[in-house]
Amino acid sequence: MTTTAKPEYKVIGSRPIRHDGVDKVIGRAQYGADISLPGMLYGKILRSPHPHARIISIDTSKAESHPDVRAVATSADLPDLGPVSRENVFPKGVSDNILARGKALYKGHSVAAVAATSAQAAEEALALIDVEYEVLPWTTNIEEALKAEAPTLHEHWPKNGSSENGIDGPNVADHVQHAFGDVAKGFAEAYIVIEREFKNKSVHQGYIEPQNATASWSADGRVTIWCSSQGHFLIQSQVAQILGLPLSQVKIVPMEIGGGFGGKLSAYLEPVAAVLSRKAGKPVQMTMSRAEVFESTGPTCGSKVSLKLGVTKEGRITAAKATYLFEAGAFPGAPLAAAAAAIFSPYVIDNLLVDAYDIVDNKPKTAAYRAPGAPNVVWAVENLMDEIAEVLNIDPMELRMLNVATEGTRRADGVKNLVIGAKEVMEAVMAHPHYSEPLEGENRGRGVSMGFCRNNTGPACAIANVLGDGTVSLVEGAVDIGGSRSSIALQLAEVLGIPVEDVNPSIGDTDEVGQTSPTGGSGVTYKMGIAAYDAAMDVRRQLISRAALLWEVEEDQVEYVDGAVRHKSDPELRLTFKEMASKLGQTGGPVVGRGNVSPTRSGASYAANIVDVEVDPETGKVEILKFTAFQDVGKAIHPSYVEGQIQGGSTQGIGWALSEEYFMGNDGKMANFTLLDYRMPTALDIPMIETVIVEKENPGHPFGVRGAGESNIVPALAALANAIHKATGVRFRELPMSPGVVLKGIQGEKANGA
Amino acid sequence: MTTTAKPEYKVIGSRPIRHDGVDKVIGRAQYGADISLPGMLYGKILRSPHPHARIISIDTSKAESHPDVRAVATSADLPDLGPVSRENVFPKGVSDNILARGKALYKGHSVAAVAATSAQAAEEALALIDVEYEVLPWTTNIEEALKAEAPTLHEHWPKNGSSENGIDGPNVADHVQHAFGDVAKGFAEAYIVIEREFKNKSVHQGYIEPQNATASWSADGRVTIWCSSQGHFLIQSQVAQILGLPLSQVKIVPMEIGGGFGGKLSAYLEPVAAVLSRKAGKPVQMTMSRAEVFESTGPTCGSKVSLKLGVTKEGRITAAKATYLFEAGAFPGAPLAAAAAAIFSPYVIDNLLVDAYDIVDNKPKTAAYRAPGAPNVVWAVENLMDEIAEVLNIDPMELRMLNVATEGTRRADGVKNLVIGAKEVMEAVMAHPHYSEPLEGENRGRGVSMGFCRNNTGPACAIANVLGDGTVSLVEGAVDIGGSRSSIALQLAEVLGIPVEDVNPSIGDTDEVGQTSPTGGSGVTYKMGIAAYDAAMDVRRQLISRAALLWEVEEDQVEYVDGAVRHKSDPELRLTFKEMASKLGQTGGPVVGRGNVSPTRSGASYAANIVDVEVDPETGKVEILKFTAFQDVGKAIHPSYVEGQIQGGSTQGIGWALSEEYFMGNDGKMANFTLLDYRMPTALDIPMIETVIVEKENPGHPFGVRGAGESNIVPALAALANAIHKATGVRFRELPMSPGVVLKGIQGEKANGA
Repeated sequence: MTTTAKPEYKVIGSRPIRHDGVDKVIGRAQYGADISLPGMLYGKILRSPHPHARIISIDTSKAESHPDVRAVATSADLPDLGPVSRENVFPKGVSDNILARGKALYKGHSVAAVAATSAQAAEEALALIDVEYEVLPWTTNIEEALKAEAPTLHEHWPKNGSSENGIDGPNVADHVQHAFGDVAKGFAEAYIVIEREFKNKSVHQGYIEPQNATASWSADGRVTIWCSSQGHFLIQSQVAQILGLPLSQVKIVPMEIGGGFGGKLSAYLEPVAAVLSRKAGKPVQMTMSRAEVFESTGPTCGSKVSLKLGVTKEGRITAAKATYLFEAGAFPGAPLAAAAAAIFSPYVIDNLLVDAYDIVDNKPKTAAYRAPGAPNVVWAVENLMDEIAEVLNIDPMELRMLNVATEGTRRADGVKNLVIGAKEVMEAVMAHPHYSEPLEGENRGRGVSMGFCRNNTGPACAIANVLGDGTVSLVEGAVDIGGSRSSIALQLAEVLGIPVEDVNPSIGDTDEVGQTSPTGGSGVTYKMGIAAYDAAMDVRRQLISRAALLWEVEEDQVEYVDGAVRHKSDPELRLTFKEMASKLGQTGGPVVGRGNVSPTRSGASYAANIVDVEVDPETGKVEILKFTAFQDVGKAIHPSYVEGQIQGGSTQGIGWALSEEYFMGNDGKMANFTLLDYRMPTALDIPMIETVIVEKENPGHPFGVRGAGESNIVPALAALANAIHKATGVRFRELPMSPGVVLKGIQGEKANGA
Repeated sequence: MTTTAKPEYKVIGSRPIRHDGVDKVIGRAQYGADISLPGMLYGKILRSPHPHARIISIDTSKAESHPDVRAVATSADLPDLGPVSRENVFPKGVSDNILARGKALYKGHSVAAVAATSAQAAEEALALIDVEYEVLPWTTNIEEALKAEAPTLHEHWPKNGSSENGIDGPNVADHVQHAFGDVAKGFAEAYIVIEREFKNKSVHQGYIEPQNATASWSADGRVTIWCSSQGHFLIQSQVAQILGLPLSQVKIVPMEIGGGFGGKLSAYLEPVAAVLSRKAGKPVQMTMSRAEVFESTGPTCGSKVSLKLGVTKEGRITAAKATYLFEAGAFPGAPLAAAAAAIFSPYVIDNLLVDAYDIVDNKPKTAAYRAPGAPNVVWAVENLMDEIAEVLNIDPMELRMLNVATEGTRRADGVKNLVIGAKEVMEAVMAHPHYSEPLEGENRGRGVSMGFCRNNTGPACAIANVLGDGTVSLVEGAVDIGGSRSSIALQLAEVLGIPVEDVNPSIGDTDEVGQTSPTGGSGVTYKMGIAAYDAAMDVRRQLISRAALLWEVEEDQVEYVDGAVRHKSDPELRLTFKEMASKLGQTGGPVVGRGNVSPTRSGASYAANIVDVEVDPETGKVEILKFTAFQDVGKAIHPSYVEGQIQGGSTQGIGWALSEEYFMGNDGKMANFTLLDYRMPTALDIPMIETVIVEKENPGHPFGVRGAGESNIVPALAALANAIHKATGVRFRELPMSPGVVLKGIQGEKANGA
């Protein structure tokens, strides 16, 4: 019998100080707004005051004659890409979103832009632009948007959707169905069938740094843009398409990014700054206020989920039916498919029907937000699972474990699970003291929930330059948002057998490194890690060849072991990486390793939370007493940053569950567009979040990485709802569970019980 | 019988607009002084007013208390690297040159530096630094420096040199001898033996842009420096050694460079700016005036050459003896070896003795200048060859051809010639109409001369990123001074079979690309070209592999021909580069090619000039009537830039021959430290220079490149001396042949003849 020994890593799993740490602590790191170019102008955007209006005319002449104004732009300055189609929202939807053409589709929709010698002058000039609007009826509610009398956003779209269930009409942008087994038979076999409806409001990603872009359009037709995005190659591609330029005429320089969470994947200011720069013949910088961020950039979608589950007396799920409506905002593109992958993901279900709808209304175009689509649907399932456990009188984790998905079973989107850690995460929850320890006291309750993210991948490129002193400059194609310079450097250092401090990672611009997909989908440590692994292996091969040259032996007699090249049979012949690095000049010049990859097995990630709350019966305020977050990350390359991701995602989940929402006024405008009124959790709202890292290694990555960025946001929503139910006896099926809502629920329960 | 067809190139040999052309024309290109960083300070240098002085003390306290001063630095802020040795001038000599330690060795030698909030305040503060000097005897003449009573610059050096010829003493930094055959026997066999002495003054490289450096020292100990140099990797290495830092703590960002010609190879302001930045905790920018450039940065060395040639009656050289003294300035390092390679290079000489000496005196440390050392010695040989031809009554080119060096013969430095084009250049001269057409008129003469540069090489790195639209971003390690972005892009484009406009070349900083040797020694088009060739071949291999994947065939069934991958036997299966580029995402991610090389056969380059002059007998002014420049460049990748190199080098040679010189006053100071008084040729002084490109391909390069940057400066010196001799009857053996000197010569000739 043979056993496979667990690999002993030298640097992977350690917790070095991040390479960009000092720069960020002392304020030397350069963000987009730090760029300053000679002769630079400042750009500002005029936004629609109406949630829905036809633009009859835009008169920019007064603004243009302002002495400090150098350029004014409208959608007339962009190529007309034709009408927005339902199927293919990009590039037209993005183009119309950044400068409205024909109609303004939401309050805050960009209508025109000004570049002036100061930001103040640009603001002044906005007031001089004369826009004639025909104000149209509007809706900021997807259920209203489905009504026959609802205003139509995209007038050229034909009716769409399913007439049998009434989810149809011109505002239905997309309908996707997933089905397998026999749902009617499954429900017929059930001991109980429960059907419930769940709702979410839009919430915003809440990144610290507003969008920004500085563009410099050269006389040779080439535009260079400095910006903070999650993926500068994607921005390059979008800018090129929106402006009708060849890809190679657009250079994007990635600056540091102050958070994105999915909201900085798509171009927003970049093409506008570019057009203003072209017209003005000067560089143009654009930054935004928080109000602009809230009113005009992607929140995540609100949703309505109808859910029906049938289970046997023992708790085995016999059938599941889900219908979910996602609010796309003004342009299509809600994450229907990602939600389908997530909805029942921890469980094996043989009979299943999922109908997913993408609905447009007069709100900002939504954008991805951490595990896009998953929280909206998973919280519904996990809420209902808790109710079923209660009805059947089964421990809620035992109910989940009874139905647990494993390798080879199917997700709701039909995809067969690869090696997954759903069971291991459930086991970790059930084994944890927090799950079994008593929770005493009045108005207190404990809830659990699972979470999931399918995790994405894409192309990635790493270039490793070996320096003469034995250090390595590592150029990466993926923007570093959460410490990935270090997590990628660790993987390179591991392969080369060198200290991670000897690696100097940086992010290459679109000229300097190969096309790399964005930092999203929890993909960076996975795909960039494989690229760095390949680059390091390329370096090793070259060092072996150099050593063979030095020693005048055949290459196949040389191997790379423990950070050194050595002759396989002559122990005298051994040179460390540092020694070899000092000999590059005499053995054939520099050594540069490259890793170009597009790996496909990114590995889904499961998460879970256990949360204890106390609910104030007088105010409805929920206090979190204890919070434990579990996540399968495959392999934690830098455990501190994995823990940080888990804590950050949990915090965002808590905000979504308890306090965050787009509060839309009766005038179709967001009422709470400041960070005082839009209530994100602060350090005072959140206890220390204990993290439990589960490592079910992903065989699709050389070190087993799955990516750790997203599934952690998912469980908090239902875990809190389930805990609040335990504390109050009330099941909440609408988010956020803000004090007013909870108080109303408690009062209703008392009235019923009384 | 088979013949090898001359390769038909698609883009090599064409003349596209340079990739950086628009940027440079419209002023968008960023030079070192264009950098502006938040909180940036301005640095200035205090320089010694004495040509030789012991520094007793430096009191910086008053300067430090100036309200706008943030840091003052002296050599006490640099690690003490011990005394300067003769053998190894770097790093100590460079360190002492940039901030004097113990003694100031020339007028203008840096003594202290100040960083302040404005350049004006920094200048003010310089006057507040109190330096106590003990003024010492000095010399600015190498012949005086050899005298027994001469002041000693480096007091710890023992006596050196050859006592038998009197070239010895503590100021002799180096002596190198090359000898083969039997010189005494050779001279004994000669029909005539002529011995002459030749002198040159120091001349300056005369780059448009003065040195500059902007340094930002971070709290984590890492320093980033933006500067204009000929090789940022060399600057990185020098800064690291001078400051005692690991290589990886020094990042150099190469800015555009306004000329270097050898004078911007070594660190000068960079370490000083870095130290000021470290002390001030802010970025520091330093720029220089033209006077500072003249008085403190490298001119090339002045020299004295004693030459003796023996020839048969037919003109065959039987023996040669040369002794040359090069003026190193304050620190050793004159190009003795390069001069030895060049001195008799066009000719086969069996009996030879060369003695070369490096002499220090109280002038700025000299630096390399285009074909370093070659003009000083070659002009002597070519002047003497002209005299011999006259004495023997042989056509001067026939005399040269009779002795022509070919593959396998030895240069004076003992190196065997590889494939060289000496004969082809001579043939081109003799076949050219300019050589045979009559030159009529009074006071007119025609001269010819050969020239030579051995050309250098070194490590180089190129990284080629394939974009989805079929363009390629090419990151190069070598600074672009003379259009090399285009000459390298052409080579990449040729291998890939794509338009050169589809290549986007840029220069990577020390983090972004592999260590590449400086832009010098005519090496860039050679070594970077090979790196780009390798990178392109690496791309081709990957595209072949991707195509095999797409077509589901074996890789060995796919080839890359004419800018496309194709199946060797199935004509249906063919995809162009652009088509393949659009499929990278679906076939395995980005494609990045790397070329890491250190090639060794850079290929020596021969040059020649034919020049017609008219000498004004009243003023001695020399007017150039016609100038034809020949050069073997192996293969002209971009002929326009090759022609530009030939014309530029010729112009610098003309300036050296006729008007440029360091005029040292009796006070040991340069008297002509402005561009009005230091007389570089202007467009009014130079006729249109006709160029003749000779292409004797270098088998050490895939396209035959030799490098075209340097040998072109060499022939003008003797060609002009020989033409002036024809016009006036006077042989000038001292440069420059300025109007006063020529007039004096004519008057002497008249007096003699009268």
